Amino acid sequence: MRDNLLRFLHELCGKAMATRGMVGEFAVAFRVSRIISLFPSITMKLSLIRSAAASLSRGNFAKISSADLSFFEKSIGNDYVKTKEIDNYTSDWTRQMKGSSECVLLPTSTEETSAILRYCAEKRIAIVVQGGNTGLVGGATPIYDEVVLSTSRINKRFHLEASSGVLTLDGGFILADADNRLAERGFMMPLDLGAKGSCQIGGCVAAGAGGIRLLRYGSLHSHLLGCTLVDGKGTILNLGGRLRKDNTSLHTAHLAIGSEGQLGVVTSVTMGVVPRPQSILSAMLAVSSYSDCIRLLSLARSKLGEILSSFEVIDGDTMKCVERHLPLKNVFEGEHNFYLLIETHGSNGDHDAEKLNGFVEEALGAELAVDGVAANSESERAHMWRLREESPLAAAKDGYIYKFDVSLPLEHFYRLTEETREKLKGRARVYCYGHLGDGNSHLNVTTDGEDEELKKELSPFVYNWVVSHGGSISAEHGIGQLKRDYRSLGKSEEESALIRSLKDVFDPHRILCPYKMIHSQE
Amino acid sequence: MRDNLLRFLHELCGKAMATRGMVGEFAVAFRVSRIISLFPSITMKLSLIRSAAASLSRGNFAKISSADLSFFEKSIGNDYVKTKEIDNYTSDWTRQMKGSSECVLLPTSTEETSAILRYCAEKRIAIVVQGGNTGLVGGATPIYDEVVLSTSRINKRFHLEASSGVLTLDGGFILADADNRLAERGFMMPLDLGAKGSCQIGGCVAAGAGGIRLLRYGSLHSHLLGCTLVDGKGTILNLGGRLRKDNTSLHTAHLAIGSEGQLGVVTSVTMGVVPRPQSILSAMLAVSSYSDCIRLLSLARSKLGEILSSFEVIDGDTMKCVERHLPLKNVFEGEHNFYLLIETHGSNGDHDAEKLNGFVEEALGAELAVDGVAANSESERAHMWRLREESPLAAAKDGYIYKFDVSLPLEHFYRLTEETREKLKGRARVYCYGHLGDGNSHLNVTTDGEDEELKKELSPFVYNWVVSHGGSISAEHGIGQLKRDYRSLGKSEEESALIRSLKDVFDPHRILCPYKMIHSQE
Repeated sequence: MRDNLLRFLHELCGKAMATRGMVGEFAVAFRVSRIISLFPSITMKLSLIRSAAASLSRGNFAKISSADLSFFEKSIGNDYVKTKEIDNYTSDWTRQMKGSSECVLLPTSTEETSAILRYCAEKRIAIVVQGGNTGLVGGATPIYDEVVLSTSRINKRFHLEASSGVLTLDGGFILADADNRLAERGFMMPLDLGAKGSCQIGGCVAAGAGGIRLLRYGSLHSHLLGCTLVDGKGTILNLGGRLRKDNTSLHTAHLAIGSEGQLGVVTSVTMGVVPRPQSILSAMLAVSSYSDCIRLLSLARSKLGEILSSFEVIDGDTMKCVERHLPLKNVFEGEHNFYLLIETHGSNGDHDAEKLNGFVEEALGAELAVDGVAANSESERAHMWRLREESPLAAAKDGYIYKFDVSLPLEHFYRLTEETREKLKGRARVYCYGHLGDGNSHLNVTTDGEDEELKKELSPFVYNWVVSHGGSISAEHGIGQLKRDYRSLGKSEEESALIRSLKDVFDPHRILCPYKMIHSQE
Repeated sequence: MRDNLLRFLHELCGKAMATRGMVGEFAVAFRVSRIISLFPSITMKLSLIRSAAASLSRGNFAKISSADLSFFEKSIGNDYVKTKEIDNYTSDWTRQMKGSSECVLLPTSTEETSAILRYCAEKRIAIVVQGGNTGLVGGATPIYDEVVLSTSRINKRFHLEASSGVLTLDGGFILADADNRLAERGFMMPLDLGAKGSCQIGGCVAAGAGGIRLLRYGSLHSHLLGCTLVDGKGTILNLGGRLRKDNTSLHTAHLAIGSEGQLGVVTSVTMGVVPRPQSILSAMLAVSSYSDCIRLLSLARSKLGEILSSFEVIDGDTMKCVERHLPLKNVFEGEHNFYLLIETHGSNGDHDAEKLNGFVEEALGAELAVDGVAANSESERAHMWRLREESPLAAAKDGYIYKFDVSLPLEHFYRLTEETREKLKGRARVYCYGHLGDGNSHLNVTTDGEDEELKKELSPFVYNWVVSHGGSISAEHGIGQLKRDYRSLGKSEEESALIRSLKDVFDPHRILCPYKMIHSQE
């Protein structure tokens, strides 16, 4: 939910963040205040699903004592046990979710993290794990008085084996910093997010981050080879390794992906990285029907094959909304029902251009697309991406907004939009854009004013529809506190029981990230 | 270990297997006897690491009673509870490992599998799970009297969503059958093994199969989206789903990969499949030094980028051994220290040829390679692959043979061969070939006759060397019974404890696959 808006916002202030090197404690504050000052009206009008976590009573955890603080100070140094001016850690970065905490701990190593967790397990002190604090579901924001364990200082080690393309880096490493270092050696991080200037690789693993290159490079499961996880007992678990092939044990490292801090703290990551593409090309197509969009996706898979990197959709209503609210012009004359933005990443610019042109020609020749434009310059390419990436901003300007981030099998992808539009006819406007190639739809609903009745019925309608059509209510962003009430939708009791048992293996005292994906009192 | 020999053997009889459609009970017998009659001398002389499982005493499991057999017959039908002529199930396919069993069960569905496992858990009856019985470490071969649960009949469902390239199929589906069905629709299974005519997709997941396309398409973690696992209590666990993006729970499906039947039976798999390549091209390079091989791997990653599919190595001694024992001629004049076989998979033949030629020219121009040949026909391509794939056969003809399948960081990849050669100087010949692009080395040692002393010291030397250099003692084939004694090498007690805890979550009575990767009495 809201990822493109956030990506857009991140990009606006990304340059400032990217230049600062390592993220410090003040970077978050700087970034948040900057965003709020740029878009006060947007954040004011953004309607979130109400946090479910607030309805849970405080768990039976210990309150922090001065003896605890002394232990922490002794373990990691006075400067890194913060009890004052910690708002940047107790709020999510949009300031939509606010919690409280008695202290923030900033260990600098796996060993310090282990010492903290061992102590907290013994004393039954609740912990919330926080990376770059760029999450979108409040997973890293404390609720009652959980200690915030920030991984921001665990960011020293960075080792690339260039011959194999295997990178080992500390969990607190900022994604963009890692990518910049790789660029010097011809490599690239296979994942890319709007939040890359602040998010940390350990947090990316814990969030199961998808991002905008997933179609081309695959999910984190494609790349993760090993990680160090400090579990809820303080045990240091070195899982997997740095080999691309290793069948000597259960593949436990993959459990860290999408674990949202429930199983432990990811203090180190070993992963495959990819050669930096020599050429990046973009094109847009105007399309009459959703079924033609799907046919074009098949054609793109076949014609662009190994270089197909993005396959994004903007529906006609969204494009009109963009033109209505933003100083941006559609790249096509006239109105169309769907617009596709297609991008390639390849190792040979001439070959890539020939492939992309061939695809566009065939799309037009077969009348699957009614019009097509390839970007001939970096500014044309940027313009195309602005249409897609500012769609959420346009929708936000359109009124009071309700936003969703769902995955659907492609046969149902657009039906959700159509049925929501039908249901809300005359009451609301419905927009759809998203990562069609990944089946990831961003549904946006806007009304002129706040509508209590619609607010009550919309999320249950959308989430039940999605689950009953084989979809996911959270494609990229996880459960955290924001989607807690809906986390069991479509899940079997057997799976839920398994999840609770796994939680008990890693965190038997349930001190890690309570009130969220897996709660301490379940 | 032995994978290329097996692949070669598989290929020799693959056609017969591929034509039979679904695998029946007699297919295994047919295949095994065929192989043995073709290569009696090879299978006789092959020295395996002695199975460690035999040294473990029988677990405290129930003996099968006639009441048990009646229950099984009632549950899955009389015809599918076999108590006679079951040698094909109680031996591994090379007949190197033999166990025994009171009965073989062939359920046809997830539900029947669940009924069996629920019953066996209650009665404490030990089970060994078997797919196509093509494993290489005896993981699917019973030791004492475990019931063999074969997934061969769980092979009905095959559903491809062509627009997204997501395939759901039953766990007992033969890999080649699935690939053939996909070929009709322009898709391909992303993994390919020599055993593809017999191995089953559920077994591939359980084995964590790598195969010969891993460099291009990634491991099974890149493709698996969901699976159905029937655990050791008979619980049906539907893990993950068919979405490319879903962050609503722990990513438990990935635990099935490489689990070797320890956690449950994989009865259904949902995975992404890939477009079938339009062009496949091969070339060989002659190289003077290992360090140049590594530089060439970097060059290939950069020049061939997204189409690089295989990067195989044959060392000079191995090539001489091939020429000495087989009616095969090197493609190069003269002798060289290393030979590389490079293959591309792409969507455009012209582009791929241009890329490959460019790479070879640069390799020669920079004097990283001393000679280079691109295959100009399918028969030239086949000849190149025969040199690589028959290397194990040549080594097997060279004497009494000791074979290894290890992964190593690239800086150590060839040092293992050099140090083994140095250590065994005058006592044995040492050959190295393998998947250099994946860091997967096949080390072969031959002697003129059986050498008891060498046999005793070789495996500990190799495995300790590998582990102390950050490698894996089993790159692709797992632990099973064959490598049980070495399974803890380089593993921390913390990780081992975690593995045992996970085992207890899925299989609390430890009835699944005892005496192997995780034993019932640990």
